[in-house]
Amino acid sequence: MKLKEIGEFGFIDRIKSLCLISEENVIKPIGDDCAVYELEGSRVGLMTTDMLVENIHFLRNRMTPFELGYKTLAVNLSDIAAMGGTPRHAFLSIAIPEDVSVEFLDELYEGMLSLGKEYRVNVLGGDTAGSKTDLVLNIALIGEATRDQVLYRDGAKPGDRIYVNGCLGESAAGLELLLGDLDIKGTLRRHLLNSHFQPEVFVRQGRFLAQSGFVTACIDLSDGISSDISHVCRESGVGAVLHRSDLPVSPELKEFSDITGKDPNDIILAGGEDYRLLFTVQKDNAAELEKRYKDKFGSPLFCVGEITEGREILLKDERALLSRLSPAGWDHFSTD
Amino acid sequence: MKLKEIGEFGFIDRIKSLCLISEENVIKPIGDDCAVYELEGSRVGLMTTDMLVENIHFLRNRMTPFELGYKTLAVNLSDIAAMGGTPRHAFLSIAIPEDVSVEFLDELYEGMLSLGKEYRVNVLGGDTAGSKTDLVLNIALIGEATRDQVLYRDGAKPGDRIYVNGCLGESAAGLELLLGDLDIKGTLRRHLLNSHFQPEVFVRQGRFLAQSGFVTACIDLSDGISSDISHVCRESGVGAVLHRSDLPVSPELKEFSDITGKDPNDIILAGGEDYRLLFTVQKDNAAELEKRYKDKFGSPLFCVGEITEGREILLKDERALLSRLSPAGWDHFSTD
Repeated sequence: MKLKEIGEFGFIDRIKSLCLISEENVIKPIGDDCAVYELEGSRVGLMTTDMLVENIHFLRNRMTPFELGYKTLAVNLSDIAAMGGTPRHAFLSIAIPEDVSVEFLDELYEGMLSLGKEYRVNVLGGDTAGSKTDLVLNIALIGEATRDQVLYRDGAKPGDRIYVNGCLGESAAGLELLLGDLDIKGTLRRHLLNSHFQPEVFVRQGRFLAQSGFVTACIDLSDGISSDISHVCRESGVGAVLHRSDLPVSPELKEFSDITGKDPNDIILAGGEDYRLLFTVQKDNAAELEKRYKDKFGSPLFCVGEITEGREILLKDERALLSRLSPAGWDHFSTD
Repeated sequence: MKLKEIGEFGFIDRIKSLCLISEENVIKPIGDDCAVYELEGSRVGLMTTDMLVENIHFLRNRMTPFELGYKTLAVNLSDIAAMGGTPRHAFLSIAIPEDVSVEFLDELYEGMLSLGKEYRVNVLGGDTAGSKTDLVLNIALIGEATRDQVLYRDGAKPGDRIYVNGCLGESAAGLELLLGDLDIKGTLRRHLLNSHFQPEVFVRQGRFLAQSGFVTACIDLSDGISSDISHVCRESGVGAVLHRSDLPVSPELKEFSDITGKDPNDIILAGGEDYRLLFTVQKDNAAELEKRYKDKFGSPLFCVGEITEGREILLKDERALLSRLSPAGWDHFSTD
């Protein structure tokens, strides 16, 4: 059987239960942004790992080594953020083809460590190997959290409001710029490429959300909002309605859309790698959380829909018509 | 600058100090079999990660998926064993080319989990990605140890005896069988290939050595004895003399040597991937430890040399002549 017949998530389902050999010390096995395990005392351990493969996740000649190093750590930090945790120690494994120079690697580590410094995250180890063809990077990142302040995907309840903590779609626009031949230059080009290469990470925001006690479920937006909300719904056993006209569009995405003649909401719904936090909040606490977040971080939260009974993920369009939203995000094996 | 000009270990030296951003919570950064970090309470965290790359570490058509899964976890367990720790949770990242079937992956997980079960190690997460060319596996493995019972590489002192806990060179012989066209069949072939594909792991032995209080330094034999003893010596600031005629040769390696006309000690000194423990013991405690180990595990320890002043690694041959031993083990970048 070919892997694309069952897809990435079908494959993960297939192996998930087999992989849990002993429940001892395990709080959350496969199926969330991080695994969560018991430690002595009041803290729990978090662990996430992400692999970036040349010609699948990145094109080596289209980004700087600095950006590659930065992004490799950023996507892992984002998983810790989505659990409300504090990142601690990173481990980089890297398979290096012969045409990669020492200077390339120096710059890659520089990019990774520049972000590491911001969060006091060490690179405490890893593995270096040769490779006959592609450059492959894998970061494993250990974090910690307070036991009763961890954000999971599985706590969303019907009636909860769905929030994101920033504008979406810019990374997807950056990717389109990167791969296409659009005549967009200057600040706009740089801004959109930056969104794709050096996504902002929301560790402090994740911890704040966890400490608030108001958040019922959380995920980081990596695969794309339609795919990621479906993960939350599936784990929580609920459905959702996203409001198309409430998707937050930045001035830069608006400008990109005007130039390309695309609807910014289509870019958002088809895109991925936003690395914003998507989370759910009980309706009665929503206004209070919005206010506190704005006071603390100076930027708004955006309500983009609500959790419903049932299992369907629906999109409400500008005329209040509902359509079924199929996950349009990234699945490594479902398509060629 | 090309990577092979400075080699794998030269590169690690280059980035080592940069990678330690904050010493908070760090007990041992890059430079041992595992990183060691603080946890609340009496325990410390261990973490190791190893990447296996197709056509570098393995040939996909020369081993079963079961063996590949088994070995990927085994090499990581061996790092935890060398620190005297208990393995806890594993995370497998895997970059999967399109021609890898679901059945292949099922069997790979089966191999990994069969070993996981033996040590109650869960696979708690990971990442699955596509790959345009090679199959790449990375396991990150979390372990724990008691704070004052961790074995490091850096405690060897002049006069200490050097031990290994099993026969060497069988994995190298297995690799030669695999790659060559030697006419060796039956039990011997299977035994040597097994040594290469499904190395025994010495987690209980490592913990026993750590608890004994007699062991001054420890490493697992992955790169090859001449390379691995040089890691211990470098970290400890000492030299060593290995006794060629004391290298432990199994009956199977002897048989292989007789057939191929090779000196078994040459095979041992040039080989790698033994995954036995190599450790140093204060001279006065050596006999006692040998006895206790034999009583507990029913198999002997082998004294293969002693730690010396200075920094040289020497080999004493059968006629008691000393020659300088240059690390003949595996360095991913120093050779083509």
